Amino acid sequence: MTGGTFDKDYNFINGELYFKDTHLKEMFDRGRCTLDIDIKTLMMVDSLEMTDEDREIIRHNCARSSSEKILITHGTDRMVDTAIELENANLDKTIVITGAMIPYAFGTSSDGFFNLGSALAFVQVLDPGVYIVMNGRYFPAESVKKNRKTGYFEPFA
Amino acid sequence: MTGGTFDKDYNFINGELYFKDTHLKEMFDRGRCTLDIDIKTLMMVDSLEMTDEDREIIRHNCARSSSEKILITHGTDRMVDTAIELENANLDKTIVITGAMIPYAFGTSSDGFFNLGSALAFVQVLDPGVYIVMNGRYFPAESVKKNRKTGYFEPFA
Amino acid sequence: MTGGTFDKDYNFINGELYFKDTHLKEMFDRGRCTLDIDIKTLMMVDSLEMTDEDREIIRHNCARSSSEKILITHGTDRMVDTAIELENANLDKTIVITGAMIPYAFGTSSDGFFNLGSALAFVQVLDPGVYIVMNGRYFPAESVKKNRKTGYFEPFA
Amino acid sequence: MTGGTFDKDYNFINGELYFKDTHLKEMFDRGRCTLDIDIKTLMMVDSLEMTDEDREIIRHNCARSSSEKILITHGTDRMVDTAIELENANLDKTIVITGAMIPYAFGTSSDGFFNLGSALAFVQVLDPGVYIVMNGRYFPAESVKKNRKTGYFEPFA
Repeated sequence: MTGGTFDKDYNFINGELYFKDTHLKEMFDRGRCTLDIDIKTLMMVDSLEMTDEDREIIRHNCARSSSEKILITHGTDRMVDTAIELENANLDKTIVITGAMIPYAFGTSSDGFFNLGSALAFVQVLDPGVYIVMNGRYFPAESVKKNRKTGYFEPFA
Repeated sequence: MTGGTFDKDYNFINGELYFKDTHLKEMFDRGRCTLDIDIKTLMMVDSLEMTDEDREIIRHNCARSSSEKILITHGTDRMVDTAIELENANLDKTIVITGAMIPYAFGTSSDGFFNLGSALAFVQVLDPGVYIVMNGRYFPAESVKKNRKTGYFEPFA
Repeated sequence: MTGGTFDKDYNFINGELYFKDTHLKEMFDRGRCTLDIDIKTLMMVDSLEMTDEDREIIRHNCARSSSEKILITHGTDRMVDTAIELENANLDKTIVITGAMIPYAFGTSSDGFFNLGSALAFVQVLDPGVYIVMNGRYFPAESVKKNRKTGYFEPFA
Repeated sequence: MTGGTFDKDYNFINGELYFKDTHLKEMFDRGRCTLDIDIKTLMMVDSLEMTDEDREIIRHNCARSSSEKILITHGTDRMVDTAIELENANLDKTIVITGAMIPYAFGTSSDGFFNLGSALAFVQVLDPGVYIVMNGRYFPAESVKKNRKTGYFEPFA
């Protein structure tokens, strides 16, 4: 877990969005998920504010993890940057990165719960590699970009 | 789409649960899904009330569909029966069956949106066969049962 | 609190609606309510199943309460019966009865949170008497009925 | 309707809160409200950005309205300023101002639907004057302030 829109909450005192707690645990419970999942918070940041150091922390934790299958929640704006950095690290693991366009805490308009379900499924069955999972699909890290006008992820050759 | 808890609504006149419309279209929109999906309603029934004829309609439609990848929404109580019937039909397609323990219309407690995300992911990448997708996992049709006390799906050897 | 649709939950094991816990405390918290409220559960029943004895329990508790202002949550089908019974008891208190057409637990379609807000407001300012609060309005107990076809409450002369 | 947190939506392209449409109509429908209500949008602004001119528009519209009972949705930060300006205008109408600490669009955490229910109730029964309705209560315009640390409205003598 690294933060991103996915985990944003509304601060009713100042009217701004912020990170309070992650919603991942309650999401897995609500999804009645019976997989053995180890949840770890690496940081809670907007991906627009992610630094090279943050990406290094993510890479380091993926490398040292004993798991062969890793799901990263991440802000959508720099998701591709992190995916490429992990791809270049050649970790021989299946790493799936997902996020949300609308915070999970915003209730019945958020895409987060759907994205989590599909990311969790893809990470179980895809071959080793780094993938972005958004819009119900998976995209290999090196051939996807976010369309900043529409918010959709698009493949390229 | 065959009905099931997944698509139940609340009838505020008589206080009972019923089928009004399917929520699948709005769920794919909310999930910002960009896959090319053809939605078809075969029936809208509780799986406890499904007949052999209903299962035959499902099998027939899976067989005659031009698609190699089929996702069926279904009541959880007889999901396994339908899965086995489809497995026995040897259709050489990837067929994934999912549902929900709590209706999607019940808002932030339903597992349906998560299940839809994971079922949609699994159907894209699993080999031909028939699978049940619940609890964040996929189960081959012939080796899963629903635990009626807990509501969880469990594999068996 | 007496039950009714207002407080119904969904039992995911048998697919039926039932009473688990009341949602009143969380509703007042979510409404950021700063009034001094004493919440008491008298029963948790469908109003269609309310007996004369149940109505007597409600009357008795209203009478012996030290409060001059009482808000009752109640199933909508027999709300008027209880209101008239309380009216006949001449308690010299402001008693407001409200409920919901769709359970609060069903998320963003329920009218319950709105009804609670308006009932709480009316009970603070109306003269002593017994009132039903539904549809954004208050109705004196002796001149209202529920239209069972539409679910709306209607005044009569 | 003047805007405020009450009617904020989430812009998934830039991650900011903004005004898209008002939710008032759907809120009255969901509340199954049968009152005859005329909804009018005067502006859609954060109350922190409200100018003297905006307040003059609100006063002018309250004065020229043919209705004796007016409900204003408003940002909470400058709610009291507008209330006092309307109080000073001596309009001989019952004017109730309400809002929300969490946007209605944020689903099951928002106080907006409850506040709307209570404001609508109070405006029907309070004597002519200007009132703020928040936290389940009404406060005369000249004796209330918002506690900016807690977000609660507090009376003062």
